[in-house]
Amino acid sequence: MTEHFADRLMTAVKSKKTPLLVGLDPVLESLPEALRQPAISAGITDMQAGVDALFDFSLKVLHVVAPLVPAVKINSAFFEAYHSEGIEIYESLIQEAHALGLVVIADVKRGDIGNTAQYYAQGCLANPAYDSMLDHVGPDAVTVNPYMGLDALSPFLKVAREQGKGLFALVRTSNPSAAVLQDAKLEDGRTVYQLVGELVNQWGAADCGKSGYSSLGAVVGATNPQQLTDLRQRMPNTIFLVPGFGAQGGSAADAAKAFKSDGTGAIINSSRGIIFAYKDPKWAGPSGGDWQKAIELATLDTIATLRTAIGG
Amino acid sequence: MTEHFADRLMTAVKSKKTPLLVGLDPVLESLPEALRQPAISAGITDMQAGVDALFDFSLKVLHVVAPLVPAVKINSAFFEAYHSEGIEIYESLIQEAHALGLVVIADVKRGDIGNTAQYYAQGCLANPAYDSMLDHVGPDAVTVNPYMGLDALSPFLKVAREQGKGLFALVRTSNPSAAVLQDAKLEDGRTVYQLVGELVNQWGAADCGKSGYSSLGAVVGATNPQQLTDLRQRMPNTIFLVPGFGAQGGSAADAAKAFKSDGTGAIINSSRGIIFAYKDPKWAGPSGGDWQKAIELATLDTIATLRTAIGG
Repeated sequence: MTEHFADRLMTAVKSKKTPLLVGLDPVLESLPEALRQPAISAGITDMQAGVDALFDFSLKVLHVVAPLVPAVKINSAFFEAYHSEGIEIYESLIQEAHALGLVVIADVKRGDIGNTAQYYAQGCLANPAYDSMLDHVGPDAVTVNPYMGLDALSPFLKVAREQGKGLFALVRTSNPSAAVLQDAKLEDGRTVYQLVGELVNQWGAADCGKSGYSSLGAVVGATNPQQLTDLRQRMPNTIFLVPGFGAQGGSAADAAKAFKSDGTGAIINSSRGIIFAYKDPKWAGPSGGDWQKAIELATLDTIATLRTAIGG
Repeated sequence: MTEHFADRLMTAVKSKKTPLLVGLDPVLESLPEALRQPAISAGITDMQAGVDALFDFSLKVLHVVAPLVPAVKINSAFFEAYHSEGIEIYESLIQEAHALGLVVIADVKRGDIGNTAQYYAQGCLANPAYDSMLDHVGPDAVTVNPYMGLDALSPFLKVAREQGKGLFALVRTSNPSAAVLQDAKLEDGRTVYQLVGELVNQWGAADCGKSGYSSLGAVVGATNPQQLTDLRQRMPNTIFLVPGFGAQGGSAADAAKAFKSDGTGAIINSSRGIIFAYKDPKWAGPSGGDWQKAIELATLDTIATLRTAIGG
C-alpha cells in the first residue's frame, strides 16, 4: 500500500524537526568560483561544461542539506534552459535526492487541459512505465497552475492518488505584480486568490490522508502575512508551500502564519539564501571560505530562526 | 534588422491565404496502425520505439501541412512525457518546421517569476547562445500563463523584442472547468478573463509591429462566441490564438468572431481533427486509407470552411 503524500511529508517534517525546504535554483553566474571557472572559461563554446558545473554543485548541495531538512524543491526551469542535457541532470538529481531520503518537490508550474495535462502529469510527476526508465522515478510532488480550473489538475490528482504523490497549486504568489490579478476583488467580496484558495481546498478534500491534509497543496507566498492568515483559515485541509521567505523579503514571523496552531500544515522554502550562502560574509567569511560549510551553517540558522518564530 | 513577430505571422497568414494553424499533439495510441505497431509491440520494454514512432509521424505531418498553412503549434507536453529523448525530437521538429518555412508556436504554457521566468524564456523561446546548439533555433513564439502577472511575462517579452519572437498568454481557455475562475465576476463588473484580456492588451501595447499587432498575443477559446466578440473589442492590438475549434466543439462561425472586420487578428488552431483525420471515414474511407492524404484533405476542407465563415 502506497503511503499518502501528505502523511509522508508530515512524517518527514516531524522526523527532521523542521518544515524547512531547500530550493535548488542553480545559476552558473552564482556558483562558487572553483565550480564556475571551467564553465566560464568554456563560455559559449561548450554548453556541457555549464551543465556539468550545475550538476556538480547541485549534487553537493543535496548532500549537505539531506541530513538537515525533510525536502528539497528542484526548479526545472534552471535545467530546461540546457535542453535535453539539462533534463538529464535534472532527472538524475531527483534520483539522488530520493536516495538521500529527501522528499522531492519538482517546481514545474505546469498547467494545461485534457490529454495535454495527462501527458504533463506523466512526464513531470508519474513514475515512468518504461523498463529503460525504471531508475527514473518521478518526484514526490510538483507545482501546478490553477488558471484553467480543475481540468488542469485532474490528471495530476489521479497520478497522486495512484502513486502516493502530491501537487501544489499556485494560490497567492510572492511576486510584486501578482496583485493585479490575484488580489482583484470579486463581486461577492472575495479576492481572486481567496476564490482559488477555496477551490483548491475543495478539490483536494476528497483525498486526505491520516494527517488530515490532502495531496493537493497550495503555493502561498510569505510576503503578506495577512493573506497567509486568511488563507490558513479558508483552507483547513491544505498544506502550504511557502516561498518568498528570506531573499524575497518574507520574515520568519510572516512565514509562521502559514501554520495551524498545532504547528503543522506548511513547509517553508528558502533557495538563494541557502544555496548561495557563501556570498554572505556571515556564513563564509570575507574570503568566501568553504561554500558547503556556508550552506550547512545557513541551513541550521534558518531552521533555528523558523523554530523560534513558529514555536515548538 | 529582425522582423517583428506579429508582422511575420500576419505576412505568413496572407501568403498562405488562411489563418489555420495545425496543432501537433501526437499520442501513440492514435497513430496510424503502420506507425504505431512497432511501438505497441515494443510496449514497456522500449521507450525509444515510441519516441521514434512519434517523430516519424510528426515529421510526415509537417511535410503534408507545410505547403498549406502558415504555422504549426507544437505541444511540448506530448514530448516531455518521454523525458530527454522526447525533448530531443521536439527540438528537431522545431528545426524541421522552420526549414519547411512554417512559423512555429511552441505550446508550453510556462509561467513563473524572476530569474525562473528568465530561464524558462531562455530554454523555451530564445535561440541558444551555445555554439553546440546553434542548429537549435528556438520556436517563433510560445504560450504562457498570466496568473502570476507581468513578472511572469517580462523575460519572454524581452526575448521577443530582441529576437523578433512572440508569446500568447492564456486569457479565456476553451475547457469546461475554466469558467469557475476565468468567468468569475469582479466588483467592477468585469470578469476575470476580461481583466486578464485588458492587461494582456496593455502589456503588449508598447511593442507593436507595422501590422498594428503586438508580440504579446492571447489564447482565447472558440467555444464561446460572445466571449470572443467581447475580447476582440477589448484587445485591439492583440493577435488571438484560438483553440477549441473542431474536436473541442467550436464552429467556424464561432471562430470567425476572433477576427477584426478587416479579416485579420487571429489564427485558428485545429489539432486532432487534422492530424488524426485518417480516423474519419470522410477523409480516409472506411479502411483507414492513406493517412497523409487524409491530413491533406482535412486541412484543405478546414481552410475552405474557415474561409466561408470569415469571408474573403
